[in-house]
Amino acid sequence: MSAGPDTTNDVADWWRTAIIDMEPGRIAFRGHPVEELIGTVSFPQMIWLLVMGRVPGEGEARLLEAALVAAVDHGPQAPSIAAARMAVTCGLALNNAMASAVNFLGDVHGGAGEQAVELYAGIARRRDEGAALETAVAETLDGWRAAHGAFVPGFGHRFHKPTDPRAPRLLALVDEAAAQGVVGGGFAAIGRAVEARLRAEKGKPVPMNIDGATAVIYAELGCPPPLARGLFCLSRSVGILAHAWEQMQQGGRNKGPTPPGYRWTYDGP
Amino acid sequence: MSAGPDTTNDVADWWRTAIIDMEPGRIAFRGHPVEELIGTVSFPQMIWLLVMGRVPGEGEARLLEAALVAAVDHGPQAPSIAAARMAVTCGLALNNAMASAVNFLGDVHGGAGEQAVELYAGIARRRDEGAALETAVAETLDGWRAAHGAFVPGFGHRFHKPTDPRAPRLLALVDEAAAQGVVGGGFAAIGRAVEARLRAEKGKPVPMNIDGATAVIYAELGCPPPLARGLFCLSRSVGILAHAWEQMQQGGRNKGPTPPGYRWTYDGP
Amino acid sequence: MSAGPDTTNDVADWWRTAIIDMEPGRIAFRGHPVEELIGTVSFPQMIWLLVMGRVPGEGEARLLEAALVAAVDHGPQAPSIAAARMAVTCGLALNNAMASAVNFLGDVHGGAGEQAVELYAGIARRRDEGAALETAVAETLDGWRAAHGAFVPGFGHRFHKPTDPRAPRLLALVDEAAAQGVVGGGFAAIGRAVEARLRAEKGKPVPMNIDGATAVIYAELGCPPPLARGLFCLSRSVGILAHAWEQMQQGGRNKGPTPPGYRWTYDGP
Amino acid sequence: MSAGPDTTNDVADWWRTAIIDMEPGRIAFRGHPVEELIGTVSFPQMIWLLVMGRVPGEGEARLLEAALVAAVDHGPQAPSIAAARMAVTCGLALNNAMASAVNFLGDVHGGAGEQAVELYAGIARRRDEGAALETAVAETLDGWRAAHGAFVPGFGHRFHKPTDPRAPRLLALVDEAAAQGVVGGGFAAIGRAVEARLRAEKGKPVPMNIDGATAVIYAELGCPPPLARGLFCLSRSVGILAHAWEQMQQGGRNKGPTPPGYRWTYDGP
Repeated sequence: MSAGPDTTNDVADWWRTAIIDMEPGRIAFRGHPVEELIGTVSFPQMIWLLVMGRVPGEGEARLLEAALVAAVDHGPQAPSIAAARMAVTCGLALNNAMASAVNFLGDVHGGAGEQAVELYAGIARRRDEGAALETAVAETLDGWRAAHGAFVPGFGHRFHKPTDPRAPRLLALVDEAAAQGVVGGGFAAIGRAVEARLRAEKGKPVPMNIDGATAVIYAELGCPPPLARGLFCLSRSVGILAHAWEQMQQGGRNKGPTPPGYRWTYDGP
Repeated sequence: MSAGPDTTNDVADWWRTAIIDMEPGRIAFRGHPVEELIGTVSFPQMIWLLVMGRVPGEGEARLLEAALVAAVDHGPQAPSIAAARMAVTCGLALNNAMASAVNFLGDVHGGAGEQAVELYAGIARRRDEGAALETAVAETLDGWRAAHGAFVPGFGHRFHKPTDPRAPRLLALVDEAAAQGVVGGGFAAIGRAVEARLRAEKGKPVPMNIDGATAVIYAELGCPPPLARGLFCLSRSVGILAHAWEQMQQGGRNKGPTPPGYRWTYDGP
Repeated sequence: MSAGPDTTNDVADWWRTAIIDMEPGRIAFRGHPVEELIGTVSFPQMIWLLVMGRVPGEGEARLLEAALVAAVDHGPQAPSIAAARMAVTCGLALNNAMASAVNFLGDVHGGAGEQAVELYAGIARRRDEGAALETAVAETLDGWRAAHGAFVPGFGHRFHKPTDPRAPRLLALVDEAAAQGVVGGGFAAIGRAVEARLRAEKGKPVPMNIDGATAVIYAELGCPPPLARGLFCLSRSVGILAHAWEQMQQGGRNKGPTPPGYRWTYDGP
Repeated sequence: MSAGPDTTNDVADWWRTAIIDMEPGRIAFRGHPVEELIGTVSFPQMIWLLVMGRVPGEGEARLLEAALVAAVDHGPQAPSIAAARMAVTCGLALNNAMASAVNFLGDVHGGAGEQAVELYAGIARRRDEGAALETAVAETLDGWRAAHGAFVPGFGHRFHKPTDPRAPRLLALVDEAAAQGVVGGGFAAIGRAVEARLRAEKGKPVPMNIDGATAVIYAELGCPPPLARGLFCLSRSVGILAHAWEQMQQGGRNKGPTPPGYRWTYDGP
């Protein structure tokens, strides 16, 4: 009988994980001792190992890295970034400011990538069941809009007109990777087919935006939809941290959204 | 007279940043168009560009990457990781689970790296003013403990005995980088001198842990103390995401900290 | 021309509210000067004024107060309470600990009251369209389960067997208020009819729990479903604060969910 | 030997509380069965019972209620309120919006009440040690400013000039309660003495604001400083909820701090 607690009982079993194993002096991530990973795998490779369970090849990691680099920030007009900056002027430490801001990346602010992966996956299913790509796109889009409304995630941008500068660059990297056999390229084709369909429907371009382009990458890499949002949160956390830190250096106390003189419009009794 | 709002007034000026400039179709981070960064810089380089203002060289980026890789996770017994897993069973999306968990990385759970950078900086100041390294270490340690209590951030580990496996590997990478002239190596010397001093004081090893080792890297790279915590938050967000996602796949509803049968001990009236 | 900013433009109009009007030295909530409310209205009346737009009568306020009192806490096994306690041991201030914990009150942990109000409202609609109450209950329940799964919000409790002690007391207060004409009582009847239907279906009691009972109150008071969750968050914030504060007095550093010796079960490669 | 888990071991003991005791069908708060509290104690009494450990008398509860009523909201220019509104337009549920907003109530935005209680307590200590009130005020103020900078928590207001309308009303209620022997009145005297001292120093009024006045109440009631912030968080959560809910009804997607046309001022390379 050991004097210590029984660590193989219902208590120890209450939390189970395949991510990390630990003993005093030993940490292993999915079977890899941490000291063999440090200095050996890149940060994107480590991210993939933890969330997806395997060290990705360099070509895959390069695509993931491009998606992570592309989405870091969209400026203080984005609610999450504004939140991070305001939080710091309320006296919060960086971890708390980051938390409040990452919390903002909900369905509307942070969900378009996840939704675009779902949309692409739906198209792929129809295509895999035998439909022509154009038919699969048209039918899936119609079903999507019937279920979720007119907004098609991943296409069009209320600010970046005519084109979101991040999307073509990301898509070019996917094309390169597909040419090298790193990924299949099927989701790039699906994304472009959606773009073509929307253009035909509207009679004008509705170009793929960053969410549509990173969704192509995540779909090519086999990433489930919710993780697309999670990875976006990792990426945007970088901009959130940068703005929080910049605001900390600028100072300011209790900064509201607009200069104090403007206040707000009261429309009550 | 323009029909649009005057964008060069007090309102536009209320939020100022050197991080990002934007016009329709154009995004630039600290002067670099985003499409020139995507596929060109690594994720750690992008992180450094945003928070520190410049693209770091490859040697520096390699050290930063090692620090980011090393700190991703410490398992479900860490309060932040447990929080992420419990949050998911309460019905939260990944962004909300990540937010609740990153919030936990306060002074006690996420502050040791920041504090160690401060401690090292204090030693460096004394040394730069002419003190011998050993004297600078002894005096700064005494001052630290007089101000903050007996706990010396970055050294010793309540679980990893005798040694935190991440620290020696990180320090070896700093030594390599110093040998190549990438960094000066002065903070590695300071960290080791603190370790030696603590060993002498206690009569047994109090080895540098991951916080002490990443603090050496951040200090070598010129990173201000609060950013060391911010960068730790970026790194630990990876493990937080991985555990939240794993828990989402496992399922479970309203999982409390221990199996339900144990409840808690009531010690009230 | 005024020297100050034009406060009647698109900037001031960006945020609009009927809740609060303000000038230097003057604050009014929905038309009531704050100094006339302080010491005059109760806290529950103030809550209702702010969220619903009017000062409720004393009878209504008494019901609201009972719902707020009933839901303050369910102990450290509840994930939100555990989160608050763990957060404090990570070095967080009370506002940050409360934030992390309130965040946990998602669909699964904090949504049952909201869902029960929706369920009751669906039954009321069918009944108002002419269906007998039993038919309305049976059809709405079937529709609910077809859409959302087998779990019926507001009924049954995995711990409090045979009865959640809060529910009968809350329902008795609704009955009193209905007898006095404060509320109509129709939703109490609906709640009881759901209970009867579930008992008939299962052949054993599935008693109304606190969520089902507070939902009766909120529905009687005319509260839209999402607000039912919001009001629950106000109530549970009390327990969250109490536990966070108690933990702060107990001390502890980085308390994980279980005693450290247990760790977790690793089931990976 | 029972087949169930041993609930009197180190695991059950890991979380200890005097706040709540529970068995199936039974919940008691600090020894009071919940069904005896519902409909009997007011919400402020329940708050005090949970955080302070006893049901306060009606006179005390009336003061607490006034403090809770007074601080519910300060409009969308307050960073926490703006955060709640923006969060909702990002797709967050009310619990998540409330969390992000309550998180903002840090040292600068939510800490003045806590700090004022500390300041008053310091004055009371000196007075209790024999100093005249004026001397105790002058010395404590000087010590406070030496330690914390020029800002004196609880006095002056950057917007409400000449007077914060909430403070005189709150102080009048404290005077009434003191006249009735509900509280001692010593902290009201201290608050007024601070006000007098600041006026003498500046040669113009620096009137007590809401934080200074609620701090008088909390100090009269024997509330430790950190709890003053916690209670403020409960109070402000009401306004946060009201604004989040109003914004949800108004709609809007990804609302940034200012109208989109204004963006921000870029001052980088």
